[in-house]
Amino acid sequence: MNLLLLTPQEIDEQGCVQLTDRRHQHIQQVHRLNKGDTLQAGVINGLCGEAEILEQQPHLTRLKLNLYRQPPAPLPVTLLLALPRPRMLARSLEHLTALGVKKLVLMHTNRVEKSFWQSPELKPEKIHQHLILGLEQAKDTQLPEVHFKKRFKPFVEDELTSLAANSLKLVAHPGNYPSCPRNINQQLTLAIGPEGGFIDYEIELLKAQGFQAVQLGERILRVETAVTALLARLF
Amino acid sequence: MNLLLLTPQEIDEQGCVQLTDRRHQHIQQVHRLNKGDTLQAGVINGLCGEAEILEQQPHLTRLKLNLYRQPPAPLPVTLLLALPRPRMLARSLEHLTALGVKKLVLMHTNRVEKSFWQSPELKPEKIHQHLILGLEQAKDTQLPEVHFKKRFKPFVEDELTSLAANSLKLVAHPGNYPSCPRNINQQLTLAIGPEGGFIDYEIELLKAQGFQAVQLGERILRVETAVTALLARLF
Repeated sequence: MNLLLLTPQEIDEQGCVQLTDRRHQHIQQVHRLNKGDTLQAGVINGLCGEAEILEQQPHLTRLKLNLYRQPPAPLPVTLLLALPRPRMLARSLEHLTALGVKKLVLMHTNRVEKSFWQSPELKPEKIHQHLILGLEQAKDTQLPEVHFKKRFKPFVEDELTSLAANSLKLVAHPGNYPSCPRNINQQLTLAIGPEGGFIDYEIELLKAQGFQAVQLGERILRVETAVTALLARLF
Repeated sequence: MNLLLLTPQEIDEQGCVQLTDRRHQHIQQVHRLNKGDTLQAGVINGLCGEAEILEQQPHLTRLKLNLYRQPPAPLPVTLLLALPRPRMLARSLEHLTALGVKKLVLMHTNRVEKSFWQSPELKPEKIHQHLILGLEQAKDTQLPEVHFKKRFKPFVEDELTSLAANSLKLVAHPGNYPSCPRNINQQLTLAIGPEGGFIDYEIELLKAQGFQAVQLGERILRVETAVTALLARLF
């Protein structure tokens, strides 16, 4: 927890907040802070700054906020990610939130196992929890939007044109394609397939929407590694 | 398992191999291959190619190898990594092996918890297992070397000069430093600190050995994310 993240509702009119949950425990047991100490804090979808500890009790921490600066700039990317297997989804959500992705589409593709859509990891509260951990890690406040698209073809044919308008459109796919570009400095829509990759038909559908296939070399990376490697190289 | 990885001792004079372990199960239950099918295969620290299934029994798979090509090129990097917490170590070993790191030094620093050195994850057989998973993932055969340095100062002062000779020397550290360079195309020695970072004294010791501090932006990444992000950007 590099940033204490609060909801607007938790903050009173004096800019104070009283915590009794895992954040209270983390401040007391991991950070080991006492009255008068400060830590970095921010409000979800709002400003960052510091929080000063006014009071420490065994079961609560009371803090006074001083918020004055913008969170880090978001990555200018819309990420289209074939739904990963549940454990990898959890980690990928934290990685990509920490890296600054603000718009994520989790989509079905041919090689996504249908059972993944039934996983408890897809419950809104579980997704939210991983996004919060990613924000706390990266000292960011701006929650990513997460969208679900369970039908690939209608999504690509009917919705992607406007979603990806005025952006560079890339699909990461192993094979005889150009190397993934570096440091692109422009708005991007990036599609990443499941374990086993997109099928040819899906690549064709994406190409018909203006996507270019690019590759990262002959090493095949796990989805969570590929997401980080692609974003680090592109931005 | 994108590559079936074998030891030289498993292969008989006719180039055949008989498997009864998890690889046999994976071929039968995950890949669902039958007699006459082929899959990609390689020998640890040796060549890659294909294996044809000669025989499938409930408890064994017999294959014939045809190995003829070199594994993917290694990354020209020596990675100095402050020992991560055990679960993160496991994942980091798989990520960095999949990315092509062949020389890894796991080192103690001030902010590495001493208890991490007692973890069962540091047993040679556990380390080996994660390296093998990373190689299978990336279709590589060349095992990384892993070294342990439990005393930071003697390692940096007495051993690092020769270890890092003729390489670009970078230490990733958040702060007011130049951005991490891209696409460096040269031999690199890269130091990455623990959660909480290096302490100033450690940065000074590394600088005295010719290391330049570089940073990845204001977002603080977990060690496993940072390793992938740095390598993807540098190579």
